[in-house]
This record gives sequence, C-alpha cells and structure tokens, in this order.
Amino acid sequence: MSARLDPVLARLDAGGDAALARLFDLLRIPSISTDPAHAADCARAADWLVRDLVSLGFEAGARPTPGHPMVVAHGGTGARHVLFYGHYDVQPVDPLSLWHRDPFDPALEDTPAGKVIRGRGASDDKGQLMTFIEACRAWIAEHGALPFRITIFLEGEEESGSPSLVPFLRENRDELTADLALICDTGLFDRDTPAITTMLRGLLGEEVTIRAASRDLHSGMYGGAAQNPIRILSRIIASLHDEQGRVTVPGFYDGVQELPEAIAAQWQGLGFDAEAFLGEVRLSVPAGEAGRGVLESIWSRPTCEANGITGGYTGAGFKTVLPAEASAKISFRLVAGQDPLKVRDSFRTTVRAMLPADCEASFAEHGASPASVMATDNPAFEATRKALSAEWPREAAFTGSGGSIPVAGYFRTELGMDSLLTGFALDDDMIHSPNEKYDLRAFTKGMRSWARIIDALAE
Amino acid sequence: MSARLDPVLARLDAGGDAALARLFDLLRIPSISTDPAHAADCARAADWLVRDLVSLGFEAGARPTPGHPMVVAHGGTGARHVLFYGHYDVQPVDPLSLWHRDPFDPALEDTPAGKVIRGRGASDDKGQLMTFIEACRAWIAEHGALPFRITIFLEGEEESGSPSLVPFLRENRDELTADLALICDTGLFDRDTPAITTMLRGLLGEEVTIRAASRDLHSGMYGGAAQNPIRILSRIIASLHDEQGRVTVPGFYDGVQELPEAIAAQWQGLGFDAEAFLGEVRLSVPAGEAGRGVLESIWSRPTCEANGITGGYTGAGFKTVLPAEASAKISFRLVAGQDPLKVRDSFRTTVRAMLPADCEASFAEHGASPASVMATDNPAFEATRKALSAEWPREAAFTGSGGSIPVAGYFRTELGMDSLLTGFALDDDMIHSPNEKYDLRAFTKGMRSWARIIDALAE
Repeated sequence: MSARLDPVLARLDAGGDAALARLFDLLRIPSISTDPAHAADCARAADWLVRDLVSLGFEAGARPTPGHPMVVAHGGTGARHVLFYGHYDVQPVDPLSLWHRDPFDPALEDTPAGKVIRGRGASDDKGQLMTFIEACRAWIAEHGALPFRITIFLEGEEESGSPSLVPFLRENRDELTADLALICDTGLFDRDTPAITTMLRGLLGEEVTIRAASRDLHSGMYGGAAQNPIRILSRIIASLHDEQGRVTVPGFYDGVQELPEAIAAQWQGLGFDAEAFLGEVRLSVPAGEAGRGVLESIWSRPTCEANGITGGYTGAGFKTVLPAEASAKISFRLVAGQDPLKVRDSFRTTVRAMLPADCEASFAEHGASPASVMATDNPAFEATRKALSAEWPREAAFTGSGGSIPVAGYFRTELGMDSLLTGFALDDDMIHSPNEKYDLRAFTKGMRSWARIIDALAE
Repeated sequence: MSARLDPVLARLDAGGDAALARLFDLLRIPSISTDPAHAADCARAADWLVRDLVSLGFEAGARPTPGHPMVVAHGGTGARHVLFYGHYDVQPVDPLSLWHRDPFDPALEDTPAGKVIRGRGASDDKGQLMTFIEACRAWIAEHGALPFRITIFLEGEEESGSPSLVPFLRENRDELTADLALICDTGLFDRDTPAITTMLRGLLGEEVTIRAASRDLHSGMYGGAAQNPIRILSRIIASLHDEQGRVTVPGFYDGVQELPEAIAAQWQGLGFDAEAFLGEVRLSVPAGEAGRGVLESIWSRPTCEANGITGGYTGAGFKTVLPAEASAKISFRLVAGQDPLKVRDSFRTTVRAMLPADCEASFAEHGASPASVMATDNPAFEATRKALSAEWPREAAFTGSGGSIPVAGYFRTELGMDSLLTGFALDDDMIHSPNEKYDLRAFTKGMRSWARIIDALAE
C-alpha cells in the first residue's frame, strides 16, 4: 500500500467515464496530418489539448511550425525533469467502405474480447497520449501538484514523416531537453504482458514515379510500340527482393548485425506464438527472409515494402490505355547500423539503372529516420518495468518493435536525451487500418500504469 | 460528273454548320458506358439518335438490353441491304485535370494543323457515326429516298466490352443480317490517305486481384512477416514478358503466323514514319518485340499490357500500410490464329501458379474477342476504295489496325456477314486520352466520302 499512489489509482478508477468522454471529444476531430484538407482539424486538435492542459494548471501552448502545430506544456517543479511525447495526428481512413461506423464518431463497443473504443486514433495515438494526461490530472487533483517537472510534447505530424520535428527540437533545445523522455506510442507484448520497447526500426519513405510517353496512349494504337510505365514499375518492384526474400538494393545490409544470442534467447523466452500472430490476419507462412523467425524478422531485420501503387485506369470497368505514368510508395524499415540516406541513394541509383530508353523516374521524399537502440542501463528502465509489472498480470518485458518511432532517435541526436517507450496498444488494434480500436482495458490500465510510473520515478 | 452524286455533295457542303451543330448536341451528352453513374446519359444519347433518325424517315428505336440500349433504324428499299455500325458511347475522361476544356462542352478550335472539333467522343465514335447519318440526310433530302436498304445499328457498350452485343445479334439475327456491314470506327492511314482496314487485332481484357491478409496491415508491425499483394502483383506483371519483349504466357503464340511477304511489302510501300509516330508522343525507341518494326508490331503482332494498377495508399503523403489486396487491369491484343479463351485460361493458370502461400487471385472478365481478317474479294471493297480515292488527295490503301473492333468478328460468327471498315480518324486524335479531337476536315470529307460510297454501292 502506498499513501501517495493508492488515492490516485482510486481517483482514476472513479473517473473512468469522464476520462472516456474527454477522449471521445478528441477522437471526434479528424486530424489526418498527411491530407492538406485536414490542416484546420489538426490545429483544432492541438487547441483542444492546450485547453485541457491549461485547465490542469500546465503552462501550455500550440506552437506554430511550417506544418501542423506542436503542443508544448510545462507542469510541476523540482530537479527531476521528464518529457512525455505522444502525437495527436492520425492516419487517413480509406477505404472508408470497410469501416463499420464513422471513423470520427467514436463509440464504446462490446466484443467477445471485451469492451473496445472504436474510432480512428483510438489506439494510435490519441487514446495512448490521454492515458498519460489522465494520470497527471488525477495526480494533480489528489496531491495539488505533480511530483516533479513534466513537459508534455505532442506532435501533429507523426503520421506524415514529422517534417517539422527536427527543426523544432533544434530551435527549442533547452526547453525540451529533460532527464528522460517517456514515449507512449507502442504496445503491450500481449494482452497480459506489458512491454518496454528497447529496439526500434527506422523508416525510409520514397515515392517513385515512372514516366514514358508525353500522354496516355490507346493500347490498340500504341501497344507493342510504346513503353508502359506500369510494366516498368512492376519490374522495378519485383526486382527489389531476391528469391530468399532478401532486399537486393546494393549495400542495403551494410552494417546490419546478427541478433546477439542473449537477446535472441530473451525473445525466445517470451513464448511468441507466430502461428496465432499470422492466423489473426488469415496468414500462415512467414513471408520475410528465408530461415528467420517472425519476431526476429519484424523486430531486428530490415525490410522493403510497397505501400501503395497506382497507374492507368483504376475505375470501374475497363479502359485500354497505356498510361503516361505510374507511381509507387516504397518504404524501408531499417535496423541499427543502416544509414537511411545511403539506402535512399542506392535505391534511387538502382531504379534509374533499370529504366529503358524513353523513360524517366522522379522521386519524392517521405522521411528518413535511423533505427534506435535504447539505453536500458538508465535506472528509470528498471523502475518502470517494476511499476508496469505491478499493474498487469505478467512481468513487463524488454522487447523490440517493427514499427518506427523516429522521435526517439531525434531526442538522442538532437537533444542528447534517452527515451523510454511503453504503451498499451495490441497487435489487433488495427492501427492504420479500418475499424481501429483501443481496448477499454488498455485505456484504464494504461492510466493506472502511468500513475504507477510517475510514482516510481518520483522516488 | 454524276447527276446523282454531285447535288448530294453540294448539299453536304452547304449544310456544314447545321451538321456540326447536330454533332455538338450529341457530344454534349456524357455517355460513358463503363461508368454506371452515366447509364442515364447513355440512354439519353440513344434517344437523341432515334429522334434524329426518325426525323429522316427511318423506322428507328432504342432497343433495351441488360446494359445500355442499342439503336436500330431501317431506311430505304430494294434488294441490296447494307448495315452501318457505329457506337454512341465514349471513354471515361480522367484525368480531368489534363483537359484544357470541359470534355462535354465541345467547340471548334483553331490549331496549326487546321480547325478541330474538341471534345470526348468527337473522333471515337460520335463524329464518325454522324458522317454517315449526315450523308444519308443529304441523300434523302436530295433524292427523296435512299438508293437501297440501309439498317443503322449503333451500340452503346463498345468502350466497355460490348457485353450485350452477341446476345442482341442472336436475338435479332434476321433483322440485322445484311449483304455487308459498313463499320465506321477506324482511321485514315495519314492526313491525305484514306484506308480500308482489313486486319484487326482482337482483345482480351482481364482484371486480376491479389489478396493476402484479411485486412490492411501496419508495415512496421507486419513488414517482414506478411505477404504484400503489391509485390506479388508486380512480380506477376514483370514476368509476363521476357527480355526480348515476348509474352511469356504459355501457348500465347500458338497459331500466330508470320506476316505474308506480299502484305509486308504493301505496308512497306506506305512510307510509314516510325520516328515521327513515336516522336509525336515523346518516344524514340520501339518498345515491343525485339527485331520487329512498329507497323508490324501494332498491326500484326499480339501484345500484353497492364492498363491500370492500384493497391495500398495512393493519396497525398505516405501511409505505411501493407495492403490486403492489389489489382491490375491487363489486356491482350490478339491476332489471327489466337483463341481468346485459351489465352485467358493460360493467363489465369500462370498467375495462380505464381502465388505464394496465403495468397489468392480472383479474376474479372472484360471481354474476349478474336482478331478479324476481312474478305477483300467482295466487290464492295474495290468500289469503296475507288470512292474514297476520288474524295481524298491520295489513293485509298488496305491496312491493318492495332485496335480492336470486336463487332466485325461477331458480324461474321453470329450473322455470317462480312464487314468493310473505313473511317476518318487520325493517330493524333487522342482518343481514350484527354483533349480528344476530330479534324473538321475529317468530318466534312467523311460525310462526302460516305455519300460517294453510297453512290458507288448503289451501282
């Protein structure tokens, strides 16, 4: 029993409905950062958060950037200074037809696995960031003030490559540099096992457009005489992997290390069920590099994927066109040792070398962030691991993550600050997909987890 | 001088503005047959034609089909019976942003090469079919009646695979069977040289959709573990051609003959300028089968092209999704000797054989029509060649065509009727592309050409 923590937990338990109502308010704002049509919605989400944080006593503001605003809020006093990071922007919602409700009209739904909060951003990342804000709210309500200095830093461009992040960190280095960053944008290892993510893949995003003729052509008139950008683009994408599933871009694996045996053994001990992981999305055979397990493939191996492709006529029916251009969005997940800019250069050189006569390629950048490996010897890691283990049925684990949280890398390179990543999402939350959800249990135990972590870090 | 023909030609010359106004009325109707949203517009175009033909004394009606209506009109009397075929439906207009005016607000525009009629369908095929109707109008106005029986048969699904055509021909065999079909949906050989098209490629349209996971996945969470349908589809498309540009579908070239030397020599004599043909659309190197010329490739060799591809996130910005599915529209241009259904079966078998575990392919049909070779020994061919040669600066030529006019094949197989194809389009008419046009000269000399042909066939 803890006289300092227990009343905060009790207050969180009593205030669940009000916390949920606040989250729903935030989820109703369609803050899709990648779509320029939603710029005003992003600003609205930032303002909503500023108002809420000011109401808690934070000194908070929505700070302009060339893109969407950053929310920065300061609360608490003392020598210890912790920065909390989350993002208020969300992914696009297409294909809308696959949602069973309006993505921006959130609701609590009953499912066989329990109650879930349904809506875009419920898990990634509005639900997660609100677990921290609610823990602060309860702490302040109970004790009058936070137990140490907390800066809350909420980004609005995480889902669109964070173009303003590094300049903003540089311009506000002193204000944002703390002893440690807490980042809440990752998941539980499984329903009952909390995780602190200590390895994160980096991400390189490239958009390539192939152009041939000066205009769309009739395939009857020109078929057999003119280049077809769809065929060229298909050939390029097909060539990016060999028969063993390895990426063929020259130099791609330079610097990539095999997983240390100690880490491999720890991951082995997690009892990961690859069959169930794949089966949940109706797959059965791991599709990555031959001879590597699923956990190794998604946590510690680099990949190359096509995330989108378009060219020619894609409407209903048929149109016998030879299109003038075709384009694809290609992403590379990167691991420790890989230089994103070297990979980009090699990729572009490879594509250009494959172009036949009369064809040209152009490229658009969509971010380039390196992988991160966390400093787990910081005592905050063990304190947090214990706090999480007290809240959840199983002991917390140090894990890897296939996703990219570029901000962790930038906190290190720009601010010299370590990051501790923990969060409460689940693999089946359908983030970036239709019908995104966040378990109500993740939200309630997430708030309680942060109260415990704040308590642990206050020691 | 011909007392029967000359006054008809004079009447056509005097009535040019009124003929153009009628064509504009028809062009204003957005009869895009492949898009279900335009079904009512297709019906409106059919009704417009029926009203116009009834006003000329034709017994005309818009006849229902499971798709868009067929226009059938009967005029004239006598033992000789000729059927005229055209189509009133048009291609989609995307990308709309590349049009320099509303595609359905036609106008006469001045260009360095002379006046053109700008608008979707101006060349393909509304402008062309109206050249025949205007010739009939002038003939009837001058002589009180047509010189022989003419049935006008106008389709509304030519640009969407003609799904209702064969059943309609079968159900109305007696009514539609004539001594010869005149089909106006092809082009001049060049500005000054009219053409009678005697070889036509067939067309097989297939839409293939590759599915893997049960939903879109996050490429961070699943990248390296899950199949990516875009990669699989790209690999399939890339594999459809070998390094020599030959189609790899097994059995694809079964039955395909090399071009007879006599025809090759005749085509050689046409003085085709491959460099100018490709240069007009900013290309320089023929992209088809290695070692074959452009004219041979587009008139007498079969091809395979991807006409459209889509998968994953294709909007602005970036989305790190592993899509659940990706699809492509693939078409095959076929030549004499190829069986469309055998090619379809082999294509589908080939695709299915390339699927890795956990992936499935589904197929949608978009037409399957064989190539056609015309019966040039029918005396109407020589009569028409002479009539065309009298109107245009150069002698008319017998040519091939890379495009597909499936109706010519169906007239033969379903009605036992030969077809004679002539028309006045040019390679730079941008049919199926933005800014479609029809030369005013093609329209006026086209009307005069049909008057001459009607006169020649009346002998």
